[in-house]
Amino acid sequence: MKRLVVLAALLGAAPVLADEGMWTYNNFPSAKVKEKYGFEPSQAWLDKVRLSSARIAGGCSASFVSPNGLVMTNHHCARGCIEQLSTADKDYIANGFYAQAATDELKCPAMEMNQLSEIIDVTAQLNAATQGLTGKQYNDTLKAEMSKLEKDCATSDQVRCDVVTLYQGGKYNLYKYRRFQDVRLVFAPEHAIAFFGGDPDNFEFPRYDLDVAFLRVYQDGKPAPTEHHFKWSKAGAKEGELTFISGHPGKTSRGLTVAELEYQRDVALPKHQQITAELRGVVTEFQKRGPEQKRISNNLLFGVENSLKSSKGRHEALLDKKFFAQKVAAEQELRQKVEANPELKKKYGAAWDEIAKAQEQLKNVRKELSFIENSQGFSSSLYAHARTLVRATAELPKENGQRLREYTEAGLPALRNQLFSTAPIYPELEILRLEFSLTKLREELGADHPFVKKVLGKESPRTLATRVVNGTQLRDPKVRQQLFEGGKKAVEASQDPMVRLAALVDPDARAIRKNYEENIEAVIRKNSELVAKAKFEVYGTNISPDATFSLRLSYGAVKGYMEDGKKVAPITTMAGAYERNTGEAPFALPGTWLEAQGKLKLTTPMNFVSTNDIIGGNSGSPVINKDAEIVGLVFDGNIQSLGGDFGFDESVNRAVSIHSDALLESLQKIYGARRVIEELRPSARPATVKANPAG
Amino acid sequence: MKRLVVLAALLGAAPVLADEGMWTYNNFPSAKVKEKYGFEPSQAWLDKVRLSSARIAGGCSASFVSPNGLVMTNHHCARGCIEQLSTADKDYIANGFYAQAATDELKCPAMEMNQLSEIIDVTAQLNAATQGLTGKQYNDTLKAEMSKLEKDCATSDQVRCDVVTLYQGGKYNLYKYRRFQDVRLVFAPEHAIAFFGGDPDNFEFPRYDLDVAFLRVYQDGKPAPTEHHFKWSKAGAKEGELTFISGHPGKTSRGLTVAELEYQRDVALPKHQQITAELRGVVTEFQKRGPEQKRISNNLLFGVENSLKSSKGRHEALLDKKFFAQKVAAEQELRQKVEANPELKKKYGAAWDEIAKAQEQLKNVRKELSFIENSQGFSSSLYAHARTLVRATAELPKENGQRLREYTEAGLPALRNQLFSTAPIYPELEILRLEFSLTKLREELGADHPFVKKVLGKESPRTLATRVVNGTQLRDPKVRQQLFEGGKKAVEASQDPMVRLAALVDPDARAIRKNYEENIEAVIRKNSELVAKAKFEVYGTNISPDATFSLRLSYGAVKGYMEDGKKVAPITTMAGAYERNTGEAPFALPGTWLEAQGKLKLTTPMNFVSTNDIIGGNSGSPVINKDAEIVGLVFDGNIQSLGGDFGFDESVNRAVSIHSDALLESLQKIYGARRVIEELRPSARPATVKANPAG
Repeated sequence: MKRLVVLAALLGAAPVLADEGMWTYNNFPSAKVKEKYGFEPSQAWLDKVRLSSARIAGGCSASFVSPNGLVMTNHHCARGCIEQLSTADKDYIANGFYAQAATDELKCPAMEMNQLSEIIDVTAQLNAATQGLTGKQYNDTLKAEMSKLEKDCATSDQVRCDVVTLYQGGKYNLYKYRRFQDVRLVFAPEHAIAFFGGDPDNFEFPRYDLDVAFLRVYQDGKPAPTEHHFKWSKAGAKEGELTFISGHPGKTSRGLTVAELEYQRDVALPKHQQITAELRGVVTEFQKRGPEQKRISNNLLFGVENSLKSSKGRHEALLDKKFFAQKVAAEQELRQKVEANPELKKKYGAAWDEIAKAQEQLKNVRKELSFIENSQGFSSSLYAHARTLVRATAELPKENGQRLREYTEAGLPALRNQLFSTAPIYPELEILRLEFSLTKLREELGADHPFVKKVLGKESPRTLATRVVNGTQLRDPKVRQQLFEGGKKAVEASQDPMVRLAALVDPDARAIRKNYEENIEAVIRKNSELVAKAKFEVYGTNISPDATFSLRLSYGAVKGYMEDGKKVAPITTMAGAYERNTGEAPFALPGTWLEAQGKLKLTTPMNFVSTNDIIGGNSGSPVINKDAEIVGLVFDGNIQSLGGDFGFDESVNRAVSIHSDALLESLQKIYGARRVIEELRPSARPATVKANPAG
Repeated sequence: MKRLVVLAALLGAAPVLADEGMWTYNNFPSAKVKEKYGFEPSQAWLDKVRLSSARIAGGCSASFVSPNGLVMTNHHCARGCIEQLSTADKDYIANGFYAQAATDELKCPAMEMNQLSEIIDVTAQLNAATQGLTGKQYNDTLKAEMSKLEKDCATSDQVRCDVVTLYQGGKYNLYKYRRFQDVRLVFAPEHAIAFFGGDPDNFEFPRYDLDVAFLRVYQDGKPAPTEHHFKWSKAGAKEGELTFISGHPGKTSRGLTVAELEYQRDVALPKHQQITAELRGVVTEFQKRGPEQKRISNNLLFGVENSLKSSKGRHEALLDKKFFAQKVAAEQELRQKVEANPELKKKYGAAWDEIAKAQEQLKNVRKELSFIENSQGFSSSLYAHARTLVRATAELPKENGQRLREYTEAGLPALRNQLFSTAPIYPELEILRLEFSLTKLREELGADHPFVKKVLGKESPRTLATRVVNGTQLRDPKVRQQLFEGGKKAVEASQDPMVRLAALVDPDARAIRKNYEENIEAVIRKNSELVAKAKFEVYGTNISPDATFSLRLSYGAVKGYMEDGKKVAPITTMAGAYERNTGEAPFALPGTWLEAQGKLKLTTPMNFVSTNDIIGGNSGSPVINKDAEIVGLVFDGNIQSLGGDFGFDESVNRAVSIHSDALLESLQKIYGARRVIEELRPSARPATVKANPAG
């Protein structure tokens, strides 16, 4: 893997013609796109695309693909819902799902869909509020002001408002969304083809996956009208064609300082990988206990493996000495320019060292912050509910601006959606996760740490996990609702062992958080703002901000690349899936595919790569052409794209998508999903109608 | 953890009074010891200590403690044997073992004990043989000459001879051992006290472990006479007392170049940790399948966890920026001195860059070398036997000097001891390990790697592992013996699926090894020799060579240290074990200890730390006073000692040992192990005689 990042791109200095950038909709470089690809998106085009795009609040992207609320996303973005709707008898993960009739569409127990209706720049307001402040005062004021802006904006439960921090604090925008909390499952193929090749093929190319699911947003019990939506392309994506990807990249770290990158390289990423690798081992082996254990832990295992592979790729990028040296050189150049100018030096000169000092402090509190406040020591859905109950009932009586950020008014609809969710919780899996995380808590903090002694007492992690999971009533959403409505008093009086555990942890967790926020986070925020502003003053704002799980638009083209001296062709065909089939998971095609082979046009393009700049969170994003028609569905990046967290290399960084033709071909000839096809392409008709694959 | 290494110590320049050094017996700095501690070991003293020391060929240290072949080592060094002798009904790991009578002593299925009888310097011979050679020629000649020296030296199966490479090739010594292959188990306590505190307390201090086992070497079916042996100290170790540790430190990397250390830091250690962490998760979860699965996998889990924790500690040392900067500075200083002297420059100037280039090449072949040639992709005892059969029968017909090193004449007794061992092999565990390692093979090399395709074909790792483990006959030592004696023809004709798998792998593995040895290893060896010689010329030979699992002597004193601003006292008491007991593993004392509490002198010293420079492989080493009497038994180092792989920091680096008083107190009052006590201290009598803890 080679990551040859042009220095200019890192610096954002000279005009850059690489396809780098996850652009905000209010700063899209249309002129640059025209210069390279001959097409200049208009404001109307951008507005239409923005409103046709969707976000799954849990961490994915999606798009509206019909006027009746039909949403397209990845199977792996909907698999939480699909698994929650499944039972041992009706396993929609294994067998797929298709709602033959509108009434068969099933409500996802805990899904929220957002549509970005407006972006408002609030930088001036926030800067004015925090001017001259530092430390705790800076942090408290900034957060209170953000909460206020969000609350004033969110006029009903159908409106969601988030202040988005761009350029590490160089800009603040208020993102206003239309919110859908009634989301239903319409179609999903079998896991075997959605994730064909499994972990071995994840982040690789060539690929042959049908990682798609269709959902529908409802309003007042009926399909929500979605005036803005994408139409289907008849031609599909061709090699060399200009493509846009509109979606929600989760997080990049291109604007981080060298000290912050070193922390990632030497502390955060290796630690994450060790613990995630061990959890992977635990869950892999747990799956062998039986088919039901396998079923209930598939989604967890997917998440763990996906996170592990992605983390490895990012780590390798930072371990690449040449690449890291470029990061160091870029920072040195900027700092030299700042030092050379007395005015800049006075305003920004100290910022890098301040951040470096804060990173050193972060090392000292990292373990306690992760394991106690961020609940890494208490991985369990039941614990998460208990913690929400303990905290929410303590926070809600406070004034909005004084609350912990996640309990402010604007966040309550999402919080209730999670807390009252009917998603099943499996005690066996809860015990497994909680035992594991308590063991890591003890391991990382040490058996003699006062907090560890307080939590474990004379119990082993296994004994404690078993006791609180088997003893709690919180599996029942009604019990959670009663406690929530009963407020602080009810929660304090509760003898539920999981609630008591969360209450036991809470004071320590709050103290750790307070120290972190006031003495570390505030310093990093404040000085990151300064670094960002120094960059603006030196290089201008002609760069895209780091990803923040807010809507972005990237552009590029369908294009192969070189790997190990060989050319990788940009498009695979459906025939390739059959060639790769071994009959053994994860390379086993499902029965529906084996049966349908004779009917398919096997030269149909299956998956393809494009130079669009994306990252985790973009899963489920539509790939569109210049007519804003669907030509594909992003579901992955290649292994080289993982380094994109820190810098984009157009020569090898690729988005991986399902081709629109393969989607249609399989919906028609394999799944006979007539209702879906008719909505996607009103003129098209399924060639044959097959039984529901969920059978 | 702080690693403040004095630069002088790294360079070996000025006279160093730190207790650094794992000294060879033919270069022990007696004068330096006298200067600091007032006692100067004589040659007679050194000879006696050397001959009273023992090595367990599998990777541990030990000592002779009676004239009748009684050997003292750690429980964790004997646990392979203890586990192999156990069955579901007689679990000596859980319940301990005590041979009430001589006839009750049980033969370990695959253990070899060595006593170092002589050291011969063969540097001149080897240098003469390889003079002027490079690459393949250099390597082939060096190895052939080593094999010849070893063969000529090993005049019978009771003699073992190994050429030991010291100072990265600056010196070569021939180590001649008396070899014992009939080793029997005499006494072992319960695992719960041998490894009290388990993984959480491993590499930590304060500690309360009784990690001891007694074995006996036999000759011609009778206890072997061991004229040279250690006597027991009446006084035991006291704070501040001078202590010596005679043992076999496995491997340190203090002489490595910066390029080699970077490879460890950025490639080898992180990779090892990821895979080991995942395996830990797999085995932890496997243990929950049932008590028998737990029993048969305990030893594996211990090894995995121990390796993981040790690897993390070493990695943290290298990630310490200050520490690494010292390594870089030391190398720069040496290189500058070499550059400044035309003669030195000509001889040694290019060596560092040559090594750096070879490390870059190593990165390219690392995965194939590890997973294919070094069998990381085929973790299974049965596969290891199959591979030995395939290779040995192909190599043995060749001339001694032409064979792969591990099949030369001098190595055959150890090889046979392993191959014909009656140690039980558990198919369920074999499948688990083989499936896991095949999965990692596929993951690391990629599903499309030609070797992966060749091995797996259309099978999944699980299918292949299950088929070859269930289909092989190699669990039976007689079958292995027949194939071995049948030679190449018999092995080639065998349809045993495990033999066929090993045969399928062999040509690829040999090709990878050949390339590695000729183009990478030879370059590193040759140039490491040059670097070592440059150091000798610049700084002299007043430094100890890196550890090589050969006998070394270190000196130091019983001494506490500072941790997180607090003083850690150097000696714990037996009372502390009772205070730490929670009743839940790994903090649960065994029943024998709970019953005996009232009878014990609870102020008896239990464990202690000393400044002796040790590392993994030193486990089981005797701690002796200046009268060469046993005052303790090494079983661990503190967490700070792990950085000792790369540099010694006397302020915090500590060896962790069982105090001789605790050994005697527990043997007498808890275990009533009269036979052992009478041999250790002919004058002592057990206070009470208790039933065999093994029941």
